[in-house]
Amino acid sequence: MSIITLTTDFGLDNWLVGTMKGVIKSINPEAEIVDIAHGVRKYSIAEAAFVLRNSYSYFPPGTIHTVVVDPGVGSKRHAIVLKTRRYYFVAPDNGVLSYAVESEEVETVVNIENEEYLLTPISETFHGRDVFAPVSAYLSMGVQAEDFGPSLKEITSLTRSVPRRINDRELVGHVLCVDTFGNLITDVTAKLIEELFNLSKATRFRILIRDREVVRICHTYSDGKENEIISLIGSSGHLEISINQGRAGDVLGMGEGGKFILKVV
Amino acid sequence: MSIITLTTDFGLDNWLVGTMKGVIKSINPEAEIVDIAHGVRKYSIAEAAFVLRNSYSYFPPGTIHTVVVDPGVGSKRHAIVLKTRRYYFVAPDNGVLSYAVESEEVETVVNIENEEYLLTPISETFHGRDVFAPVSAYLSMGVQAEDFGPSLKEITSLTRSVPRRINDRELVGHVLCVDTFGNLITDVTAKLIEELFNLSKATRFRILIRDREVVRICHTYSDGKENEIISLIGSSGHLEISINQGRAGDVLGMGEGGKFILKVV
Amino acid sequence: MSIITLTTDFGLDNWLVGTMKGVIKSINPEAEIVDIAHGVRKYSIAEAAFVLRNSYSYFPPGTIHTVVVDPGVGSKRHAIVLKTRRYYFVAPDNGVLSYAVESEEVETVVNIENEEYLLTPISETFHGRDVFAPVSAYLSMGVQAEDFGPSLKEITSLTRSVPRRINDRELVGHVLCVDTFGNLITDVTAKLIEELFNLSKATRFRILIRDREVVRICHTYSDGKENEIISLIGSSGHLEISINQGRAGDVLGMGEGGKFILKVV
Repeated sequence: MSIITLTTDFGLDNWLVGTMKGVIKSINPEAEIVDIAHGVRKYSIAEAAFVLRNSYSYFPPGTIHTVVVDPGVGSKRHAIVLKTRRYYFVAPDNGVLSYAVESEEVETVVNIENEEYLLTPISETFHGRDVFAPVSAYLSMGVQAEDFGPSLKEITSLTRSVPRRINDRELVGHVLCVDTFGNLITDVTAKLIEELFNLSKATRFRILIRDREVVRICHTYSDGKENEIISLIGSSGHLEISINQGRAGDVLGMGEGGKFILKVV
Repeated sequence: MSIITLTTDFGLDNWLVGTMKGVIKSINPEAEIVDIAHGVRKYSIAEAAFVLRNSYSYFPPGTIHTVVVDPGVGSKRHAIVLKTRRYYFVAPDNGVLSYAVESEEVETVVNIENEEYLLTPISETFHGRDVFAPVSAYLSMGVQAEDFGPSLKEITSLTRSVPRRINDRELVGHVLCVDTFGNLITDVTAKLIEELFNLSKATRFRILIRDREVVRICHTYSDGKENEIISLIGSSGHLEISINQGRAGDVLGMGEGGKFILKVV
Repeated sequence: MSIITLTTDFGLDNWLVGTMKGVIKSINPEAEIVDIAHGVRKYSIAEAAFVLRNSYSYFPPGTIHTVVVDPGVGSKRHAIVLKTRRYYFVAPDNGVLSYAVESEEVETVVNIENEEYLLTPISETFHGRDVFAPVSAYLSMGVQAEDFGPSLKEITSLTRSVPRRINDRELVGHVLCVDTFGNLITDVTAKLIEELFNLSKATRFRILIRDREVVRICHTYSDGKENEIISLIGSSGHLEISINQGRAGDVLGMGEGGKFILKVV
């Protein structure tokens, strides 16, 4: 039995996700559908890629990960099946699979063209229903990636946010996203701090953000005092700026793309 | 194995949907529950009917569609099982099944009365738990529609929004709903434009909405330039008024019931 | 086959819930995961306890109820498996299981320590993924509660909101929570009114709330006239203060902890 995961920006206040599930179950009643997230910020390919990156590898080998954050639906962008050694990915070719391509051994990428496996006539505005759901269902029934269309040499990559080193003690980091608790998740990883500044453990730095100086590197959120801005290495290995039971993003007035300075002490 | 779909206005910030699922699984552990939507606008029977209309027919034959948008819970409104050739529907008799009745071959409608299949004592405020969930579960186990109560001759119909033709070149259309992306979905269908104005294809018209004139009929959302208001025929066959990666509803200050003029050119 | 329910404050706009599901399915592909609620108010242990209380007992015996509302993640708070005669509960020991302990026959409580059943290295900020998901999955495969760690004598209890009797005709009640429809659910139960004031049925009282007097005790929401504030005994047996298709909480400007007087007439 195959698992098909769904990650979309469709929300749950409408028929879009339910319709995709109906299509999948009509083709393969045995498919098991697991929702990853349907509240990805609308049109945010970067956020969808990050959501997928933090979750996909926890699923069993053979899982089919289907991502529909697709501002270019109906345009000339490709729709792809990407097969790696462990997983299948089904998505528009717009960068949402950037992290998967990086971390997994890619075996095949094909451009979905074979109408035999699509709902026709294909609408120009809802490929979740007409393309991605049926392709995922057929994949889960054993149809081979190659059967969906011709192979592609390249896929679209996201421009990634990368910290910029200023000197041998400082770097400029950026906010990747604000998580559901208001924590600022940054593009600085523990590994990077250690490598860049030759530290044995990423615990001796300060952060300058807006007009604040964050000096405490904590282990967990509840180490913070009331309203204290703290930093810590979160569960995805990234530096986070947080407030215990507060919303650091709101308090600092910072969101995606926001800058800060990290200074080794 | 039977699929039971759920469509409600309960939201996911509370115990209501989870409780219904518990009741179903306690009666029939083999039932497979698929969420269609739980974020229907509270008390909006029209929106629930539209959500169901756009999704139900994509599910496999035999699916039990359970809808609980039920502002009249505990009043004298009926609770019904509606059996069509392909599906079962379980819902309050308040109009949420209007579209299903229209498009499917109705075989039986019964008023749910048989307490043998209900959770007793039946609360007066949560029939999702005490009536609709257990009835859906028993249906999925093979209990016949007729066993739930006496048959009904008629069910409640929604007053439907219908475009009004003004002359041989113009009609007044209405907004059915604002979708999750801010698109205005209207009561004008491609079919209607073609029939009404004897056009071979629904592509030669303009829309007057508020003080704006929409001239471009596009194929998909991304055909629109930044901030341009466009129109297109969406995936449910209805005319939509949209902005590429914007929210047409907000920009035009228009919601459900809003009017516009469509003019053949 | 075992059901694992999930109740969290993680929301569905991110990877947290999906990641937990991936972990569970990787350990036990046969586990059936049912969402109770993921929109519990962030950090609200009381709300999570109430959500669980209203839903858990509707699930079949053997169900594993997993609750992750965990402001103290990574601190010294325990993570526990609580086995009752009918169910398993997996949660941080912070009070979320207060109601379950009260209503179920507790057989065993253990402190989760055995790293064999955890994802290591255990992050200090996401025990949903590293502790609660894998433990739930192993429980569903037949691992015994005792195998996860040493037993605990006591678990943390919530301070419960309790109505205060003023005299032989009056009591002060409190709002437990505002439900998704804006109804104020209170800590006054039908049973309590009957016992306290020696009434045969809880229908002869008035409520003084803010500057309003609520005189009508209704059967269901739709008994209320437009904008009328009514009271009724809701589906969980608690007194609710409501407006038919309106939001009593907003209209009265009242939320969790708000007070009112109930007066027998």
